[in-house]
Amino acid sequence: MSAALARELATLLERSDAVLDATSAQARPYMTDATESRAVRGRAAAVARPATAAEVAAVVRWCYGHDVPIVARGGGTGYAGGAVPRDGSEVVLSLERLAGPAQLEPGAWRAWVPAGARTADVRRRVREHGLFLPPDPASAESSMIGGNLATNAGGPHSFKYGVTGAWVTGVQVVLAPGDLVEFGGRARKDVAGYDLRSLLIGSEGTLGVLTGAWLRLIPAPAAAVPVRAVYPNAAAGCRAIEAVFAAGAVGAAALGGGHGGFVVIAEADGTREEEAWALRDELLEVLGEGAVEIAALEERAEVAALWRWREGVSLAVTAQRGGKLSEDIVVPVERLPEALAAVLEVGARHGLSACSWGHAGDGNIHATFLIDAAARDDVARAEAAARELFELAARLGGAVSGEHGVGLVKRGALSLQWSAAAVAAHERVKRLFDPKGLLNPGKKLARPA
Amino acid sequence: MSAALARELATLLERSDAVLDATSAQARPYMTDATESRAVRGRAAAVARPATAAEVAAVVRWCYGHDVPIVARGGGTGYAGGAVPRDGSEVVLSLERLAGPAQLEPGAWRAWVPAGARTADVRRRVREHGLFLPPDPASAESSMIGGNLATNAGGPHSFKYGVTGAWVTGVQVVLAPGDLVEFGGRARKDVAGYDLRSLLIGSEGTLGVLTGAWLRLIPAPAAAVPVRAVYPNAAAGCRAIEAVFAAGAVGAAALGGGHGGFVVIAEADGTREEEAWALRDELLEVLGEGAVEIAALEERAEVAALWRWREGVSLAVTAQRGGKLSEDIVVPVERLPEALAAVLEVGARHGLSACSWGHAGDGNIHATFLIDAAARDDVARAEAAARELFELAARLGGAVSGEHGVGLVKRGALSLQWSAAAVAAHERVKRLFDPKGLLNPGKKLARPA
Repeated sequence: MSAALARELATLLERSDAVLDATSAQARPYMTDATESRAVRGRAAAVARPATAAEVAAVVRWCYGHDVPIVARGGGTGYAGGAVPRDGSEVVLSLERLAGPAQLEPGAWRAWVPAGARTADVRRRVREHGLFLPPDPASAESSMIGGNLATNAGGPHSFKYGVTGAWVTGVQVVLAPGDLVEFGGRARKDVAGYDLRSLLIGSEGTLGVLTGAWLRLIPAPAAAVPVRAVYPNAAAGCRAIEAVFAAGAVGAAALGGGHGGFVVIAEADGTREEEAWALRDELLEVLGEGAVEIAALEERAEVAALWRWREGVSLAVTAQRGGKLSEDIVVPVERLPEALAAVLEVGARHGLSACSWGHAGDGNIHATFLIDAAARDDVARAEAAARELFELAARLGGAVSGEHGVGLVKRGALSLQWSAAAVAAHERVKRLFDPKGLLNPGKKLARPA
Repeated sequence: MSAALARELATLLERSDAVLDATSAQARPYMTDATESRAVRGRAAAVARPATAAEVAAVVRWCYGHDVPIVARGGGTGYAGGAVPRDGSEVVLSLERLAGPAQLEPGAWRAWVPAGARTADVRRRVREHGLFLPPDPASAESSMIGGNLATNAGGPHSFKYGVTGAWVTGVQVVLAPGDLVEFGGRARKDVAGYDLRSLLIGSEGTLGVLTGAWLRLIPAPAAAVPVRAVYPNAAAGCRAIEAVFAAGAVGAAALGGGHGGFVVIAEADGTREEEAWALRDELLEVLGEGAVEIAALEERAEVAALWRWREGVSLAVTAQRGGKLSEDIVVPVERLPEALAAVLEVGARHGLSACSWGHAGDGNIHATFLIDAAARDDVARAEAAARELFELAARLGGAVSGEHGVGLVKRGALSLQWSAAAVAAHERVKRLFDPKGLLNPGKKLARPA
C-alpha cells in the first residue's frame, strides 16, 4: 500500500526524490517534532515534498480524492504534535521545498514569503533593508514561516509587537479538495470579504494547507537593549512585572522562573537609539525595585549569549530527566503569581518536579513537568497534572494555549475554555472546510475524542 | 403585521419603549446611515432596542424562529449602508442601549466595552488612566464600538497602530439561532480554538450580532504632533509619502487631495515627549521635500482645528452638490499616484466632479464622486464610475474596501477581487453561520445578486 501510494504521489511531483518511503531512515525525522521529548512519535504512509504551491494543491487534490489523510509540516519544531502523523495512514506533506526566493518590497515595508522559508533567514534578509519582522519563536533558526502561520506563533517580542497573525496581510492556501486560493495580499487594509485569512492562521493544517504569505514589516529598531533582573522569588518577580504595566513601559517582557530565583528579561528598543536608552533607564528603575541583581546588557556578545540562554531553556530543562511535558497556558497577567504557584503545587501533588518560564507580559507561561519519556507512568502523571493547569487557565479567564497550539497533545482542552455553543461553532467550521475529515485528523480537536 | 410584530418583540424586552413602530417619526433615523447622501434609505418592520446582551439573544432567537430578518445597528455612521434595512421585512436591532459601564482594568491595559459605547467616550475614559485605544474613525463621537467591530473600522491612526481588530482580544456575540457566545477574553494570546473572533470582526452583522468586546490598550503617547504639508499636486504628495517609507519614519500618515493642491498630514507621537519631537523633526525634513508649505502644529487649539477639519472633509465634500458617492478602495501604496489620477479621469468620463482623501500610508483612499442625490441619473453614473475603481483596485492587487465595509452599496464587488474558489469559501461561511439567511440579508454579498 505504502509503496504504491508513494509511486502515485511521485507522478504528481517533478523531482524524483520528492516522495519518501515512510519506513526509510530518511523519513524518520518527519515522524515527530519537539514533542519527541514526551514520546510522541507516529507513522505515516509516505512523505511528500512538493516544490511549488501548485504541487501542494495537486497532492491535496489527489489525497482528498482518494480518502488519504494529510499532515502538513513545516520545520517540525512544534511542541504540540501538530505536525506529527499518527497511525500510518497519513501522507506527511512537508513544505520545506517551498523555500524559493522571498519577494521583498522594502520601499513599501512588505515581503511575500513562501511557507518553507526559515523564520530567522527571513528576519535577517529584511533586516538588510533596515526592516523588522517582529515574531521570533525560540526555534527561529529551524522553524518555517508556514509553521509560524499554522500555529500563529509568538515569541518574546509578542508582548510589544503581537503574534505572527498581526504581521500577515495575505495568505496563500490550499483548501479542500485541492483549490489554491489567496485571501488578502499586499493591501494593508482590507474588509472586502470575511477574514478567512485570520481564520486559517493558527488552524494547524486542519482547515487548509498554508503555502505562503504577504508579511507587513516595520523599520528595524535602531537599538535593542535587554534588561535582566533577578528576584528572590516568583512573587517579587511578578510584582516587578506589574510595575512595568503601572509605569506604562512598553518593553518586550519575558520571564524565567523555577524553584529558586526568578529572572525577568525586558527588552528596551526604539527606532532611535535615544528612545532605547530612555526605555532602558526606565526599565532599570522599575524592575530594580525588589531585584537582587539587575543589569542592562549592551555588549553584542552578552546580548547574544542572553538570547542563546533564553532559547536554550527548553532544551536545558529537557536534559534534567530526558523528557518534559510543557504546556503554554495563558492567564490574565495579574493572576501570574497564582498560576506559577499552582504549577509547582500541582506538580508536587503528582510527584513531578516542575518549573515555568514564558512571556510574562502576555501572562503566557510554559508550565513544565520533568519526566522520563520512556516511563509510561511519568507521562500519564504529567498529563493528569497538565489537565489541572488547563482547568486553572480556563477558570482564571485565560487560554489553554498561547502560542504552541493544540495539536495532538492538547486535544480536547478547548472544551474547558469555551462554552458548548462556542465549541459547536468551532466544530462546524472544521466540517465546513474539511467535510471528509482528512486535513490533519485528530488535531486541534475542541472536545476529547 | 408590523404592529403585531412590535407587540411580540415588546414582550421580550424589559423597557416599554424598547420597541419602536417602524413608521413612527422616532424610527426615522434608523432607516438610513451616512449613505443617505446617496439616497440610500430603507423601511423596516420594527426597531428593537434591547438593553442587555441577553435581550439581544432573545430578539435574535425569536426572529430566527419566526423567519424575520435582522439588521444589527450601532451609531449609524456607516458609509456602506450596512446598517440600513431594505424592504420593510426586517427588524432593526439597535445596540445603542448596550452602553452600560465599561469595565476598565487599567493595571493590565485592558477594558471590557459593550457594543453601544461611543468610540470617543471609550477613548476619553481610558485616557483618564493614561491609556490609549488607537482606532479612531472620523465619526468617533457618534460611532459605537459595536459598529467599529462589525466593520473592523480604521481611521487616521491605523497606519501606525492597525485597525479595530488589532485591539480586540475577545468578542461577545449572538450567533444564530440565538446563542450568546464568547470567543476570547482577557488573554492577550490565545490559539486554543479557531480564530472565530477575527472572523466575526468585520462581518457586518451577517454572521452574528456583536454585543461587546475585550479591548487591549497601550500607554497613551506623551505627545502627538501633527505635521501638515501642502504640495502643488498629487504626484509631489505621493513622492513625499514614499519618502516617509524610505526614511523608515512610522508616522500616522493621512492625506487629503483634490483638484488643486494636495495635503499630507502625518502625526509624530511617542511615549516620551522627546520621541515625538524627534519624529516631528524627521517628518518636517522628509515631507518638506517638494512641499510649498509645511508646519508642525503644536498648539492644542490648532491641533484640534486640524482634526476637526479632517473629520469634516466628508461633510464639506457632500455639501458641494448635496450628495456624494465615496468608495474606500485600497491600492498598494506605490500605486497611489495611479489610483488618484484614475479617480479624476473616471469621474470626468462619467461627467462627474471627483476628489480623493484618505489614509495614504495604507494606500486607502476615499475616492469620491459629487452627486445630486435626488437625481437618479447622477447616482447611476457614479455607481458605474465606482465599479471602474473597484476593478482598478482589484487589478492593482488592492481591495474594494479598506474600512467602510461592503454593506449594501458595494455588494458584489468582492468577486472582482477574489478568485471563484475564494468567493465560494466566503459564501459557504455565510451559509454556515446563517443557514436561513436572516442576518442582515443582502449585505456583504461576494457576488452581484
